[in-house]
Amino acid sequence: LKPPSPSISSIGERGLIDRLRRRLGPTPDFVRIGVGDDAAVLVPARGMQDAITTDSLIEGVHFRRDSTTAKAIGHKALAVNLSDLAAMGATPRAALLSLAMPVDFPLDDFDDLVEGFVSLAERSGTALIGGNMTRSPGPLVVDVTAIGSVRPRRVLERVGARKGDWLYVTGHVGSAAAGLGLLTSGLDRALMSEGQLACVARLETPEPRTRFGRIVARIGAANAAIDLSDGLGDAALRLAEAARLGVVVDAALVPVHGAARDWFVSRNTDPIAAAVAGGEDYELAFAVSPRREKRFLSAARRCPDLLVTRVGLFATEPGAWLDSGGSLTPLCQAFSHF
Amino acid sequence: LKPPSPSISSIGERGLIDRLRRRLGPTPDFVRIGVGDDAAVLVPARGMQDAITTDSLIEGVHFRRDSTTAKAIGHKALAVNLSDLAAMGATPRAALLSLAMPVDFPLDDFDDLVEGFVSLAERSGTALIGGNMTRSPGPLVVDVTAIGSVRPRRVLERVGARKGDWLYVTGHVGSAAAGLGLLTSGLDRALMSEGQLACVARLETPEPRTRFGRIVARIGAANAAIDLSDGLGDAALRLAEAARLGVVVDAALVPVHGAARDWFVSRNTDPIAAAVAGGEDYELAFAVSPRREKRFLSAARRCPDLLVTRVGLFATEPGAWLDSGGSLTPLCQAFSHF
Repeated sequence: LKPPSPSISSIGERGLIDRLRRRLGPTPDFVRIGVGDDAAVLVPARGMQDAITTDSLIEGVHFRRDSTTAKAIGHKALAVNLSDLAAMGATPRAALLSLAMPVDFPLDDFDDLVEGFVSLAERSGTALIGGNMTRSPGPLVVDVTAIGSVRPRRVLERVGARKGDWLYVTGHVGSAAAGLGLLTSGLDRALMSEGQLACVARLETPEPRTRFGRIVARIGAANAAIDLSDGLGDAALRLAEAARLGVVVDAALVPVHGAARDWFVSRNTDPIAAAVAGGEDYELAFAVSPRREKRFLSAARRCPDLLVTRVGLFATEPGAWLDSGGSLTPLCQAFSHF
Repeated sequence: LKPPSPSISSIGERGLIDRLRRRLGPTPDFVRIGVGDDAAVLVPARGMQDAITTDSLIEGVHFRRDSTTAKAIGHKALAVNLSDLAAMGATPRAALLSLAMPVDFPLDDFDDLVEGFVSLAERSGTALIGGNMTRSPGPLVVDVTAIGSVRPRRVLERVGARKGDWLYVTGHVGSAAAGLGLLTSGLDRALMSEGQLACVARLETPEPRTRFGRIVARIGAANAAIDLSDGLGDAALRLAEAARLGVVVDAALVPVHGAARDWFVSRNTDPIAAAVAGGEDYELAFAVSPRREKRFLSAARRCPDLLVTRVGLFATEPGAWLDSGGSLTPLCQAFSHF
């Protein structure tokens, strides 16, 4: 039996910052000033531009503390930002971690959250260079800013798809949505199949597609890119809208994990529609010109563990459509967080 | 009589982003990609380094929506970050605005918050390049990241004070604390004196000391700097600790605004002790070597509207002390947000 963890208020803000700093390894040379000053100072990467993004996870909106671990929260808070950088073709360099925590937040959970964040940071070459800790009168809020570097003429933008481009997507679609369904159904993790656990893992600890995004950008293999934070349908629509085009996704090609498919079917929902609508997969979608397709697939071969699938086509006809054996239905509603 | 404002949920996330974008002017050339992609992309300033900081304002902790305006919240959320950049001697370039809002947050308040943020951004040459909007199940949370540029060998660090350096501070100390006291006392703003309103303004809409910080850095006039987010006492202690020195502040020299002094006295508190302990002034404190003092004061002359006062001395004797006519008392407790 483990004694209950003391709360973060027992060691105060400076104690927490000291604890965080002890977990950090040596900072890379480009970090001129890291954690502990009014601001961090970075030496820019020679000949590169800076890609910068921010995204937050909020208790009660993006996660529940009783159904996920603090370590997963820390991981995911960084992962969703690295996914945005990957969608630009940028290489992560640094991140800021801003935490608003209830005063009774257990110190063990603080340590676990930091561990989840820092271990992904280390694996991805991201230096934690600063942040902010404050009290929250309500939910736990984890706000992260990530900074990466990208070659000036190699940035993958959301705008750029052309008529006749293929729509490609990495990984499986809808896994995170199935994972959320599995978790909220109350099914015990101990009773989940390996495939079901993979869906939950995609929801809780998504792996940003950093390497693939960077390679595609560097070899100029795509005309546009976006990440799947709000689902494949939303991503395809946004790529199309940015280019003032339409898009058609072939339902037969949408890569849905077997466990996710089984879960959707067991809930009497159409698995493809559910997968396309499901958010939080943090995969990448690309517009790839047919004459660059070989080049794009050569990037895929350099990431042998990553599934890469052609799922649709950009066309001049407006709208975003799901083609199920010749019958067209609207691909999605624009996703709103409100 | 004005009809009540609809809530933000009436126009959804994309509507809010469109509304925000319409308020933004043309982006400067160094913003290669601004609001609307997965990440922003900036062209680095030639020969400069990047200073990066993040800070958040949380309803119920840093402000109350019933006693301050949304415009002031938007202003202050950016100002506190610009203050951190100023303390490094950095020139602001860009900012990210991350908003977690209750679904019933009035659209008028959203517009006002954006207005407060963007008008300070414009005045300070800061481009709003991205951010994030999401629902909050509890408090309004405004999380901002600011990015500036600073000359490599001109960064003002927290570390660097030397034995015999003077402690200098900008502006008045304790005004924000007095302003908070005035607001929470329930005194109607319409009944406040001009001086009292100045204290409230310092609390609600602090002006970051960007120009002064930049000049001091550029001419190499200080050995160390910090901003007064948690009070002069805390700032002096941190500058001293970073240098493994002690510091003595002369109570007779601490610049306290007359209205703040009167307020503290009316509450039967020692005005100097209260001013030194009061946070949120967002002034700057510097360690200035006596042989650079002339240079430092030349920077002050270039900011004629800004009060700049010598208040203390760094010494080898450990500790941080307030000297009131020869009697020493501890300057402060380390401030903790928990």
